[in-house]
Amino acid sequence: MSSTEQSPAAHVPEAKRLLLKSVLSYADANVSASLDRLFQLLRIPSVSCDPRYAPQCQEAASWLTYELGSIGFDASVRQTTGHPVVVAHQKQAIGPHVLFYGHYDVQPVEPLEKWDADPFDPRLKVQPSGDSQIIARGASDDKGQLLTFVEACRAWKTVTGGLPISVSMFFEGEEESGSPSMDKFLDQAGDELHADLMLLCDTYLWNDAVPAVTVMFRGLLEEEIEITCANRDLHSGAYGNAARNPIQVLAELIASLRSKSGAVAIEGFYDDVTEPDEELKSELKKLRFDADMFLQNVGLSQAAGDEAYSVLEQVWTRPSCQINGIAGGYYGDGLKTIIPSKAVAKVSFRLVAGQDPEKIQAKFHEHIRARMPVDCTVKFTGLGGSKASVIPSNSQYLRRARAALKDEWNCESVLIGSGGSIPIVSVMQSRLSIDSLPIGFARSDNRHHSPNEKYDLSSFHKGIRSWIRILAELSGGESNKSEL
Amino acid sequence: MSSTEQSPAAHVPEAKRLLLKSVLSYADANVSASLDRLFQLLRIPSVSCDPRYAPQCQEAASWLTYELGSIGFDASVRQTTGHPVVVAHQKQAIGPHVLFYGHYDVQPVEPLEKWDADPFDPRLKVQPSGDSQIIARGASDDKGQLLTFVEACRAWKTVTGGLPISVSMFFEGEEESGSPSMDKFLDQAGDELHADLMLLCDTYLWNDAVPAVTVMFRGLLEEEIEITCANRDLHSGAYGNAARNPIQVLAELIASLRSKSGAVAIEGFYDDVTEPDEELKSELKKLRFDADMFLQNVGLSQAAGDEAYSVLEQVWTRPSCQINGIAGGYYGDGLKTIIPSKAVAKVSFRLVAGQDPEKIQAKFHEHIRARMPVDCTVKFTGLGGSKASVIPSNSQYLRRARAALKDEWNCESVLIGSGGSIPIVSVMQSRLSIDSLPIGFARSDNRHHSPNEKYDLSSFHKGIRSWIRILAELSGGESNKSEL
Repeated sequence: MSSTEQSPAAHVPEAKRLLLKSVLSYADANVSASLDRLFQLLRIPSVSCDPRYAPQCQEAASWLTYELGSIGFDASVRQTTGHPVVVAHQKQAIGPHVLFYGHYDVQPVEPLEKWDADPFDPRLKVQPSGDSQIIARGASDDKGQLLTFVEACRAWKTVTGGLPISVSMFFEGEEESGSPSMDKFLDQAGDELHADLMLLCDTYLWNDAVPAVTVMFRGLLEEEIEITCANRDLHSGAYGNAARNPIQVLAELIASLRSKSGAVAIEGFYDDVTEPDEELKSELKKLRFDADMFLQNVGLSQAAGDEAYSVLEQVWTRPSCQINGIAGGYYGDGLKTIIPSKAVAKVSFRLVAGQDPEKIQAKFHEHIRARMPVDCTVKFTGLGGSKASVIPSNSQYLRRARAALKDEWNCESVLIGSGGSIPIVSVMQSRLSIDSLPIGFARSDNRHHSPNEKYDLSSFHKGIRSWIRILAELSGGESNKSEL
Repeated sequence: MSSTEQSPAAHVPEAKRLLLKSVLSYADANVSASLDRLFQLLRIPSVSCDPRYAPQCQEAASWLTYELGSIGFDASVRQTTGHPVVVAHQKQAIGPHVLFYGHYDVQPVEPLEKWDADPFDPRLKVQPSGDSQIIARGASDDKGQLLTFVEACRAWKTVTGGLPISVSMFFEGEEESGSPSMDKFLDQAGDELHADLMLLCDTYLWNDAVPAVTVMFRGLLEEEIEITCANRDLHSGAYGNAARNPIQVLAELIASLRSKSGAVAIEGFYDDVTEPDEELKSELKKLRFDADMFLQNVGLSQAAGDEAYSVLEQVWTRPSCQINGIAGGYYGDGLKTIIPSKAVAKVSFRLVAGQDPEKIQAKFHEHIRARMPVDCTVKFTGLGGSKASVIPSNSQYLRRARAALKDEWNCESVLIGSGGSIPIVSVMQSRLSIDSLPIGFARSDNRHHSPNEKYDLSSFHKGIRSWIRILAELSGGESNKSEL
């Protein structure tokens, strides 16, 4: 499985290379013990959104703390206003200092009847290909992925007595519930989490053979917009025509947000958009992305966004405006002949590099206010915002991680974007100025949040090996924050 | 209160006029007995929408049947699939034959704490003006109004031994619940309800001093429209821009239904609209309608309909298209970053004379289908339709009723429209080809459906007197269906 024998990486000095080889061999020889530990963690039903599972969330945090302690981490369970977090440190004299983030909580398992077996009784299912799948809730999201990093540390610690660089761990238990306690926890404990770089393992491979680093996440601006016309619901017979209808007004406003080309029609919306740098652009161009299949999978045939851009650009590098919800008047069975007083829509913007959520919010409000007809009032409720996160293609850490991935996977990794965001990435960037390198080994068919969630055993094994190499590469030279 | 002494109506022969005077005198002398009977009926809590009051609905029907029997009607309670109806006949050798429609059921009384006293313990409240108000649930809608006609018949019967024309009565007990049993009942018993004309007393005076006949009701076409794009809800991060958003599509479709002038923008929508005849137009022009106040009362200042028409025209003589409800995606607290698969709107059209619901439905579908973008499907669900009801200004019956009203109120009645419809009016027109003359004595401040509902004692008394005169006038000459 390792490729070091065939193509020794010229950039790793010989002594280091031999050490790395030993660590990888240890990981290979002990993969079934690693799998045993993953099974132990998977057996704990740490469903964060259901209060009945609070003790199990506590148990998962304790389990992780014990395991991290057993491999030399100064680890502790920290109580929060919700489920606890686990914080652990193992400092070395040499840098950089990385913070690894993961989450031990899982999604609910409903509908239970669609599972082939107990979601919290993990099992290995051998595939015709010979590879096996680990099937359980959380197998991939995120217990399996999280443990790839822990087991990589275990291998380093066991073989060499220490880690190649300073490592802190930060595992939360509310990721699947919107992290309600995170802000308060970071207010108190944020300083302790300072690091040069955050690593995450909650993302996907590009395909079964090609690893990926997610270097762009779009930002998010969420707004509720409420239109009020008359001071009460009116009878559509008595007032139909004469009274302004807030659903009609809201529909016309929403229609005005989008031009015929599919672009967002708010004046100045694209003003501050920073295009990806040339290196990233060229990386993205190399990706063989099947846009037709991407759309066909969800029953669509044509991209609806700005026709000047490819589908991949539309979802990764171009900002968007989406109506996520709308409600007004009567929408139960049958029909009530009212002209409602109010109508409301939930609007969200996905932002890209260069765009400031506050500026976009102001432009959005201005766009709406300029189009408000007489006798209508608008109320905006801001539901939060975050900037896009982008890791420059010339980041030293990125280069080193990619070199490590190339050694393990025997091919160049790809740089990809994400149309969404992993909230912790923007939180850590905005609160602690820590950039992230999200590297994951999940496959697109892993059924996250769905019945029969799985993680391929090969993902787990090669994930551990990949992190072993990444830790080695990151220790390979002087780095500091300014290089990222 | 009567004005016959001052201005004897030249069109009523002397003998008839003396008879009429006696009947009116009887009504005047016995108004407190009439009021006692109204109080008896008001004490029965016949709330039709609440199954707990089913026995009280039955009781109200029985009470009416008994009272009608006591004044010579062949009256009976007829069971339906819901609350019973009352049918009664008292035929005369001379025509025309009128069918009087009313409803004995009432709205619920909630919120009870907003009533100054028990809603089913009617009481008289003397006003500073000297007039008294009858306060109770159903005082005006429709028990008080219904009894004005019954008491008019009682006066005729008691004084003369008979009625001046053939009268049938039809009282339902589900008007406030959408008349769910009506269709089935009419399937069975419709033939028995044939008449030359239907009279109703469920409408309003123009103002305290001026009676009105409602000669136009708009028709109604109700449609649900559902737009589907992707085959499931999508993550707005992963697909935002690329995936078509059905809320956006629906908003653009709704926006396309209305032109900048406020007119309906469906091609051919106005093609078949029949303008009111010159007589009615001139009647409408004479009305001193305070459009500003009409709008101000509901918090508006400008009419939103086709600016080429007055507010009164917009709500009475022009068709409209209203979105009564809309729903799509997530509209609870906060925001969910989804691009939903579906979005739905409830659309209703108010139709005027000349417009055919089926034709309008076809034009609406065509309008939507022609604007559907790629990757979207539309599903229409028809929720029913009815044509507008219009009584020609030259109707013989209308002329006679107005002459009677003029004698009683000492001023010309006005002809008004209604932007909505009274369902029974279009039902009887379409099923039995019976036109209606809705004449009511309610005032705009009667608080229908609200706490402290009231009916002015003067409305009740002059209502009885008005019907006494109308019955006399209708018997005054040969009439047949073709004159109406």
